[in-house]
Amino acid sequence: MLMVLVLGLSVLALAVAWGLRGYVLRQDNGTPDMRKISDAIQEGAEAFLRRQYRTIGTLSIALGVVIYVLYAFFRKPHADEPAAATLALTTTLSFLFGALCSGVAGIVGMYVAVRSNIRTASAARSSLNKALQIALRGGAVSGLFVVAMSLFGVGLLYTILEAMHFAPTKIPLMIVGYGFGASFVALFAQLGGGIYTKAADVGADLVGKVEAGIPEDDPRNPAVIADLVGDNVGDCAGRGADLFESTAAENIGAMILGSGLALANPGVFSPAQVVGLMLFPLVARAFGLVASIIGVLLVKAREDEDPMHALNRGYMWTAVLAAAGFVGGTYWLLNPPAFPVAWWHFALCGVIGIATSIAFVYITQYYTEYRYRPVKTIAAASVTGPATNIIAGFAVALECTALPTFTISAAIIASYKLGASSGLAHAGLFGTAAYILAMDTFGPITDNAGGIIEMSHQPEDIRKRTDRLDAVGNTTKALTKGYAIGSAALAAFLLFSAFLDAAVDISKPEVFVGGLLGAMLVFWFSALAISAVTKAAVSVIQEVRRQFQADPGILKGTSRPDYGRAVDIVTVGALKAMVAPGLLAVGMPIAVGLVFKVLFHVGAETVASFLMVGTIAGILMATLLNNGGGAWDNAKKFIETGEYGGKGSPTHKAAVVGDTVGDPFKDTAGPSLHVLIKLLSTVTLVLAPLFV
Amino acid sequence: MLMVLVLGLSVLALAVAWGLRGYVLRQDNGTPDMRKISDAIQEGAEAFLRRQYRTIGTLSIALGVVIYVLYAFFRKPHADEPAAATLALTTTLSFLFGALCSGVAGIVGMYVAVRSNIRTASAARSSLNKALQIALRGGAVSGLFVVAMSLFGVGLLYTILEAMHFAPTKIPLMIVGYGFGASFVALFAQLGGGIYTKAADVGADLVGKVEAGIPEDDPRNPAVIADLVGDNVGDCAGRGADLFESTAAENIGAMILGSGLALANPGVFSPAQVVGLMLFPLVARAFGLVASIIGVLLVKAREDEDPMHALNRGYMWTAVLAAAGFVGGTYWLLNPPAFPVAWWHFALCGVIGIATSIAFVYITQYYTEYRYRPVKTIAAASVTGPATNIIAGFAVALECTALPTFTISAAIIASYKLGASSGLAHAGLFGTAAYILAMDTFGPITDNAGGIIEMSHQPEDIRKRTDRLDAVGNTTKALTKGYAIGSAALAAFLLFSAFLDAAVDISKPEVFVGGLLGAMLVFWFSALAISAVTKAAVSVIQEVRRQFQADPGILKGTSRPDYGRAVDIVTVGALKAMVAPGLLAVGMPIAVGLVFKVLFHVGAETVASFLMVGTIAGILMATLLNNGGGAWDNAKKFIETGEYGGKGSPTHKAAVVGDTVGDPFKDTAGPSLHVLIKLLSTVTLVLAPLFV
Repeated sequence: MLMVLVLGLSVLALAVAWGLRGYVLRQDNGTPDMRKISDAIQEGAEAFLRRQYRTIGTLSIALGVVIYVLYAFFRKPHADEPAAATLALTTTLSFLFGALCSGVAGIVGMYVAVRSNIRTASAARSSLNKALQIALRGGAVSGLFVVAMSLFGVGLLYTILEAMHFAPTKIPLMIVGYGFGASFVALFAQLGGGIYTKAADVGADLVGKVEAGIPEDDPRNPAVIADLVGDNVGDCAGRGADLFESTAAENIGAMILGSGLALANPGVFSPAQVVGLMLFPLVARAFGLVASIIGVLLVKAREDEDPMHALNRGYMWTAVLAAAGFVGGTYWLLNPPAFPVAWWHFALCGVIGIATSIAFVYITQYYTEYRYRPVKTIAAASVTGPATNIIAGFAVALECTALPTFTISAAIIASYKLGASSGLAHAGLFGTAAYILAMDTFGPITDNAGGIIEMSHQPEDIRKRTDRLDAVGNTTKALTKGYAIGSAALAAFLLFSAFLDAAVDISKPEVFVGGLLGAMLVFWFSALAISAVTKAAVSVIQEVRRQFQADPGILKGTSRPDYGRAVDIVTVGALKAMVAPGLLAVGMPIAVGLVFKVLFHVGAETVASFLMVGTIAGILMATLLNNGGGAWDNAKKFIETGEYGGKGSPTHKAAVVGDTVGDPFKDTAGPSLHVLIKLLSTVTLVLAPLFV
Repeated sequence: MLMVLVLGLSVLALAVAWGLRGYVLRQDNGTPDMRKISDAIQEGAEAFLRRQYRTIGTLSIALGVVIYVLYAFFRKPHADEPAAATLALTTTLSFLFGALCSGVAGIVGMYVAVRSNIRTASAARSSLNKALQIALRGGAVSGLFVVAMSLFGVGLLYTILEAMHFAPTKIPLMIVGYGFGASFVALFAQLGGGIYTKAADVGADLVGKVEAGIPEDDPRNPAVIADLVGDNVGDCAGRGADLFESTAAENIGAMILGSGLALANPGVFSPAQVVGLMLFPLVARAFGLVASIIGVLLVKAREDEDPMHALNRGYMWTAVLAAAGFVGGTYWLLNPPAFPVAWWHFALCGVIGIATSIAFVYITQYYTEYRYRPVKTIAAASVTGPATNIIAGFAVALECTALPTFTISAAIIASYKLGASSGLAHAGLFGTAAYILAMDTFGPITDNAGGIIEMSHQPEDIRKRTDRLDAVGNTTKALTKGYAIGSAALAAFLLFSAFLDAAVDISKPEVFVGGLLGAMLVFWFSALAISAVTKAAVSVIQEVRRQFQADPGILKGTSRPDYGRAVDIVTVGALKAMVAPGLLAVGMPIAVGLVFKVLFHVGAETVASFLMVGTIAGILMATLLNNGGGAWDNAKKFIETGEYGGKGSPTHKAAVVGDTVGDPFKDTAGPSLHVLIKLLSTVTLVLAPLFV
């Protein structure tokens, strides 16, 4: 019954997404000039995705084989588990299924996003509200697809295994592979997309703005299409895979905790209540989907209004409805007669989760918007040159880890003290996931719309309209990252609550060393991600320089540059560069587990400490990189409003340096770290039995 | 008997230091022109130290009162402990004594260092070897004083308490305050000195090189004396206090472990052997002092040789002699008949410690010298401007945490597996401390000598000679930081081995949150330290601009700028700015302990996790900041050798930005983090009983 509800609501959300797709595609798609640009973006983005998913697919199949072999032949069987062969098969298949679902969600979201940009641009010629609605609904296709597919996938696996007569409480552990598959794809999608977007951006900016002295999004720049493609593959496909993974991992983790809670209290719950306890996270998520749909459809802006206000109203509706659904769900499903206070304790956990997500939104705004002190300090420090701009920005980046840490700490402890696991707080946090993701994909759509307007030489006042939307898009992208890191932190804590049934004594030398190695992985991984951008950016710069030299007509505006070659070069560069950090992330926990198991017989405990301290370091480093990058970006924008000499002044040039430095921080390394955090948990959950 | 040996060798080392002081002061002190500059440096440095130690003294006395009250009235008494009043008194007095000794060591070292610079400069006019010897022996006064005072202080406290008939195994716990006092002073000394040195440096560079277009160390720059003073108060006084603390904390920690080992194995050791076990670290340290004295006295360079080779030869002698002393010491003192293999297991731990220190030296060189890949990548990335220089440098900074982590991990596990605590490995690491410290103080002395030569307009070939010494000084400073962070890591692990007798289960939510907060402290503290530099630098810049405007004769070279006012302004700025990060570092572990004790009754375990994860994050962040800063610095120097267009090219300008960014990283935040790591352990050790 419950499962029918969950699957039904997922299918409903998918149907709404399909409807929104139709709505977007029916809109006017502009002038031939605009279409030429939009087509080039589409082509580039889709070519990148094809090649990226081919690589990821190959890697996934290889890893699937490894998982099967390890589970079938090397895993120590437990007494109360399905047979090794069965478990190996379900784990491997759910791994591959998770990878596949993630891929499908990413591709569909991208398909619509790259078609929404031109329609947003076209609508901006007549109405701000229309443009806003198209961009948000185009983004919502991606958001709904991601969340609904993740829910549908978990639900489907559960239903199939239940039909095969496995005990319901055993099923969650059999499908952990689904989360791992999603993580694995997300890691490479986010890494590849993140490297692509920033290599193209940094490369285009350095050679265009700095060397050739032409403005941003200028059609004479051969890398300009690659830059616009990058916004899509990084923010849209990458972040989609990231949140797909978060929801999948959180669903399964919460189910494992629920079944554990039921098994630990025999007799308290009836069999139906046990199932309710386990499936509650899925039901809450399904309600959240409905809330997000309503929120998206309600968004409507007056022509003279800050579009951010309209988006915030939609978000508030979503949050309130999701909270109501959550509270209702706890009363319905988490209400054993033996503990009459349980349901509202659980409900409070959900409210804490939603409050946490709102707190993250405000903290992120405080540190990244130029209305507040931090960004203003960076702008002020730019007066004395790029060095002080960087120093001030890095200080802000370090400082901005404090408030999120207090928030996460309070959320974890409060929900734990409410007698529940933090899993329920987390389910609350995720209620609004689809709406948040719609706002995120809104970012690249409006950014691209602005680019199309700019490149097709539309009048000034239309550009101003898309600039307003673009500024909102930058804010929503920053918010999503804050949300993603909060969710990564709670999902990771949830997953290792699920994973651990033993103490992890960090005062043992091996366990301490495990923690040290885990934290170091975060630093090393960030290093690889950032230097991948530099490497790929250098190849872009060389290509653009070559084109400028080979055909002087390009800079004069008389010949058309070869956009396709620049797109190709970034594609190849990004895909090559994503392999090393990806393998490090997957390989290092496995290596640590095996080495410490074989040499010192403390594999599981060491890996747990590796995971926890790695998660802590990852949360802090990701916050540093995301908000630092955002703050630099907006310090530049602040100066562009005319402060400290405005655009073109030496102060502005200094701020441009900071902005460029922040690019790989906030769009490559930071977001990839979210995925790393969750990958660490799922990799551990799936492979933990090997380390015991 | 053993104590007589320890105290005797400490006194011997102090006598040798006094002799070296005489040697340095007897040297020729140059022309009146040179003396004028040197006098200004002396005056500025001593004025800063006076004001700094007045502030630190006041803070120490206040904290001493707090410690007394907490120990006397709020501490839960243990059965086998001295009475609360006695313990409160010994802890408070040893805290104040530790603070005092640290201050005396810092002041004496500085006194000689600021007098060695001019004598080194003067000697450089005739002989490279002579200049090298004066600089190293001047540095050795500081090195020997720091290590010998630390040893003497612990030895003296032990002797006094033993004479008062306390049981030897109880004494170490009664004098932990000594380590805390040393940490407390070190934190403020390093913070204040680090902020001073970089505020003056960044300020002088930005306004001099960038705005006014005058070279480094130009006498027309009003902040030039402040810059030279900064080298002394940061590298010499700051690092001296840092290593004073390391040796003190490590001595006491190892004694506690030794007494614990003896108490845990009753009957295995005779009473004399128990004392031997406890005092072994002091004896090993005393042997290391002798080894360092011999090493320093052996250093002699041929006129045409790279001075670094001469210093390396001296270091190798020191290391070999210290290792021999250590092995002999284990055979003599750690050789219970019941465990015939024990002594050489322990000896191997010491060898591992020495090997670790050598590994750190090579890793630091690899990441910070321009002969190797990392610095070359940064230089190459500077071709495309300051942004890519910063990105490449930050990637190197992140990456360079990997090898030290593997090294520390291997050292901790190997020494633990050898059946000994890591304390003994650590005692090995510290054998060469005095020599290392002499090399470190060598840095500011040669830097100042170069400045004096430059400012007194000496001929080109003499400047070249001091430039060679200065380049070596930069390398030795980087090495010492690598060594200091390695020692901080091992000292911290040693201290919490001493502190913990219970498991720290990081899978408990409160304990996990403790770890999260500990890691965050590292980020927040770094933010405060770095922005303190910006704040203080801005005041320098404004003062220099004011002077240039008020008297145009300064830039023409016809009027003398007011150096004193610039020195004053940095002094006030640095001292004001050190308070906030200092209080955060001391206050946060106490706050976390009390809050988690009162609210959740898990104070001790949470603080332990706070400490451990904070230590992990601190090691990584300090390595990032130190080596990143060093790499940027040398990338600039590499370009100055003529690569990529050489001095004055746009590439060079980009590299100067990176160098400036790295300044507060490597000379303020990084070194302060070493102290923070150890402070965390001592604060916890002293206050732990309050959190139970």
